[in-house]
Amino acid sequence: MPLMKFHIFDGWSKENIATLLDAAHDAMVRSFNVPERDRYQLLNTYSSDTMVMQDTGLDIPRTDRFVLVEVVSRPRTSEQKQAFYANLTEDLFEKCGVLPSDLMVSLVENSDADWSFGHGRAQFLTKEL
Amino acid sequence: MPLMKFHIFDGWSKENIATLLDAAHDAMVRSFNVPERDRYQLLNTYSSDTMVMQDTGLDIPRTDRFVLVEVVSRPRTSEQKQAFYANLTEDLFEKCGVLPSDLMVSLVENSDADWSFGHGRAQFLTKEL
Amino acid sequence: MPLMKFHIFDGWSKENIATLLDAAHDAMVRSFNVPERDRYQLLNTYSSDTMVMQDTGLDIPRTDRFVLVEVVSRPRTSEQKQAFYANLTEDLFEKCGVLPSDLMVSLVENSDADWSFGHGRAQFLTKEL
Repeated sequence: MPLMKFHIFDGWSKENIATLLDAAHDAMVRSFNVPERDRYQLLNTYSSDTMVMQDTGLDIPRTDRFVLVEVVSRPRTSEQKQAFYANLTEDLFEKCGVLPSDLMVSLVENSDADWSFGHGRAQFLTKEL
Repeated sequence: MPLMKFHIFDGWSKENIATLLDAAHDAMVRSFNVPERDRYQLLNTYSSDTMVMQDTGLDIPRTDRFVLVEVVSRPRTSEQKQAFYANLTEDLFEKCGVLPSDLMVSLVENSDADWSFGHGRAQFLTKEL
Repeated sequence: MPLMKFHIFDGWSKENIATLLDAAHDAMVRSFNVPERDRYQLLNTYSSDTMVMQDTGLDIPRTDRFVLVEVVSRPRTSEQKQAFYANLTEDLFEKCGVLPSDLMVSLVENSDADWSFGHGRAQFLTKEL
């Protein structure tokens, strides 16, 4: 169920985008212990005119390979979230060369009633999931 | 007030997009009992490289007419949400031919102070709404 | 940390977009008292076919210079949010000519564990922030 929304700058190849999405999904499965087919990903690209990403004064350099990942998920513990940030950072660096300084994550939580995966039903409420 | 964000694959005609947005708004009005002009909709399109939508193992087939709807709304009951999923599924199938297996919804809640519809005021707090 | 997502119609110049993002950031800094480099902005553009923005019956006219701003932030008080709406309205009008009737804001809250600004760490939990 987590919905992952990726925001990157223009210039990535199709192959690198595919690798990015695969790697991020692997980190998600590993961190939140979700089913393999629990994969819902959107990716949008931006020019430097339409995406501005600084660092809150943390002195983190950003490059044109910066990746912002927004996640919408049912509640997760702080431990799970921190594991996800660490795993995602590791996987994106190893598999796509995304620098740890180029990865930002923003998470928003919702609840069981907030998801319908098809057929007009809320599968977490109907106990299909 | 609900903000509806649609994510679809490339290939829809302008006419079909208009029908989709109209139908989804009708289902929203009917389910959440909002005013007719409480309509705020965004639509983005994706290639198969930039939108990956699976099924959490629910064995739901997806086609290139898949529709993901994200909704941001003040709190609604589980009953209202389930009615919305059912109504939206019915309306999109009847009016646009979107298969029930091709419709996914993800909802996020916020509160009265979180909306300004114009003039720099929070209309749910000022009691204009 | 607030993430600001802008949704506007096609037709803005690069210069006007830059002014819009700068002005909105200034209003954010002033209202939520965040660091100067706490700037995270995305902007997407739409045709009139893919963005429909009405007024909930409030009788607010909209033009093709309409601006929707989505904000994701850690919790803020109602007072802070109302100050932000007022400041944003004022700044966008003065600096970009965006009419007060053309500005809408939708806010969603999350918490300390929901942000990682880089290096795979949750900086609000590690006390780096």
